[in-house]
Amino acid sequence: MPAKDAVTRYAGNPILTPEDVPYDCRQVYNSSVAKTDDGYVMVLRIDQRRPEPYLFLGLARSTDGLAWTVDPKPLMEPEDVEENAVYDPRVTRIDDDYVICYATDTSVGIRLGIAVTKDFKTIERKFLSEPDNRNAAMFPEKIGGRYCRLDRPFARIYEKERPYDLWISYSPDLRYWGDHKPVLRWQEVSWGSHKIGPGAPPIRTDAGWLTVFHGAELREPGPTGWNKTYRAGVMLLDLEDPSVVVGRCEEPILEPEPDVPYENEGYRPRVIFPTGLIDMGDGRVRIYYGASDQVMALATAKIADLVALCT
Amino acid sequence: MPAKDAVTRYAGNPILTPEDVPYDCRQVYNSSVAKTDDGYVMVLRIDQRRPEPYLFLGLARSTDGLAWTVDPKPLMEPEDVEENAVYDPRVTRIDDDYVICYATDTSVGIRLGIAVTKDFKTIERKFLSEPDNRNAAMFPEKIGGRYCRLDRPFARIYEKERPYDLWISYSPDLRYWGDHKPVLRWQEVSWGSHKIGPGAPPIRTDAGWLTVFHGAELREPGPTGWNKTYRAGVMLLDLEDPSVVVGRCEEPILEPEPDVPYENEGYRPRVIFPTGLIDMGDGRVRIYYGASDQVMALATAKIADLVALCT
Repeated sequence: MPAKDAVTRYAGNPILTPEDVPYDCRQVYNSSVAKTDDGYVMVLRIDQRRPEPYLFLGLARSTDGLAWTVDPKPLMEPEDVEENAVYDPRVTRIDDDYVICYATDTSVGIRLGIAVTKDFKTIERKFLSEPDNRNAAMFPEKIGGRYCRLDRPFARIYEKERPYDLWISYSPDLRYWGDHKPVLRWQEVSWGSHKIGPGAPPIRTDAGWLTVFHGAELREPGPTGWNKTYRAGVMLLDLEDPSVVVGRCEEPILEPEPDVPYENEGYRPRVIFPTGLIDMGDGRVRIYYGASDQVMALATAKIADLVALCT
Repeated sequence: MPAKDAVTRYAGNPILTPEDVPYDCRQVYNSSVAKTDDGYVMVLRIDQRRPEPYLFLGLARSTDGLAWTVDPKPLMEPEDVEENAVYDPRVTRIDDDYVICYATDTSVGIRLGIAVTKDFKTIERKFLSEPDNRNAAMFPEKIGGRYCRLDRPFARIYEKERPYDLWISYSPDLRYWGDHKPVLRWQEVSWGSHKIGPGAPPIRTDAGWLTVFHGAELREPGPTGWNKTYRAGVMLLDLEDPSVVVGRCEEPILEPEPDVPYENEGYRPRVIFPTGLIDMGDGRVRIYYGASDQVMALATAKIADLVALCT
């Protein structure tokens, strides 16, 4: 099966747009979804201009994961002068905790943050990495007694082209991290010559941890000057040692299609940025993704098809 | 007292040169010293050409910290294909452990390593950071139950000028690290406009943790094309919260002097790179430093003078 045929875009896309946000919002995208006891939450990336870009996290709720209601108040804003922006969240439910990984731009570099909440009211900040790092996605359970995250540090060795790799890190408690290892290198992804990075938090399958990642390629600049194309890929990580890739689909499973307007119109056109992967319990997954750095969109796939693609 | 008058260069400098190394050695510098039960050890940075640069750690021993005998075999070499070079060690004795922080260049970036040995025969590698990071220096005891290190991550925010900052990190066990905070920013150091970073592992004084750091400035390239000057500064960190600078000397305490040949001749001239600070128990310290990326040198100072400079 061609990779792209494994995935079906939701007919009601986009599922969330700035018009759905009950406060000032220029873009809402790169937002991540988790299941709750009675429905779904989406942790939102909200972009404002004040007049400089001001980025923070919002929250939306849904009973079916399709129709969303955005909370009237932000979920998490930059905390102090060190944080100029909080953005690109990933949310993972681990037991009764919702672990939110996010990026924050600061006066001392780009830092990866990890915060935990049980109720989306009180949020405890557990970790802020050294610069530069972002795009972390937490596994939904401890593996070998340790929390595991995928992330993307910025390595100067590649400074000319900036094609960063995808890494894994481990922690006993979410506060202290170590055992860092590269998982997937940009050179391995034919459509990731600018950079690759974690996308949606992984889900458990019998064949391994299934995770959707992103890759970016440079292209001729469009009318706005934006010159990258982002696509989504899929891979399987070993259940016991998730630093090992046991299968990967060489082709992207989602790339911007010419006839899909929300993937071609927006703040940064031709960006598909996967941020959520939900096991629907019926053999299917939902893939939530930011589209054109403007809105949120949804696609579905059979788990067996995605696993079969990971050769 | 002018800062430079607080420090006296040892008349027998340089104290270690490539000629003292009983195997192929192009340069021996940026090497770090710790006290043992009956003398001193120096963990060496050895540069070879094979014909590409090959960097690894050696070991020297001394009864007085002045005259050194280099072990006939290397202490620690690059472990596998991921490590192209192991260099710039700092050694700190913590109880009966010698903790060695080092930098390693790898195919996935510049990583900060931490290894522990009791006997300089068996070495246990505890940690390899995500890229890019280097120049770590460990405190000589746990503070508030945690190991503490100073280090220098590379932040892309400064990519144009590359003036990196000096940070602190904490760990319960040397394996997992967190609570990362910036300690000193390059903008605060008038002679650190290219970058600053940790130097010697700190020592305890009544006034705070005394530590010697480095700063680099760009200058007109010399005959070899090398275009930076490195100097050593001194600061005091709070005894209970070492992320807080309680005093710092605005001027460098050591900078390359025109009439000191080993600070002006070598692989990279005009580099003073402090890597060891030893409390001699008589109110004085020894400052060990790499000179011109070629040899090791030594200077002495009164602790009270250095503390008085940290206003």
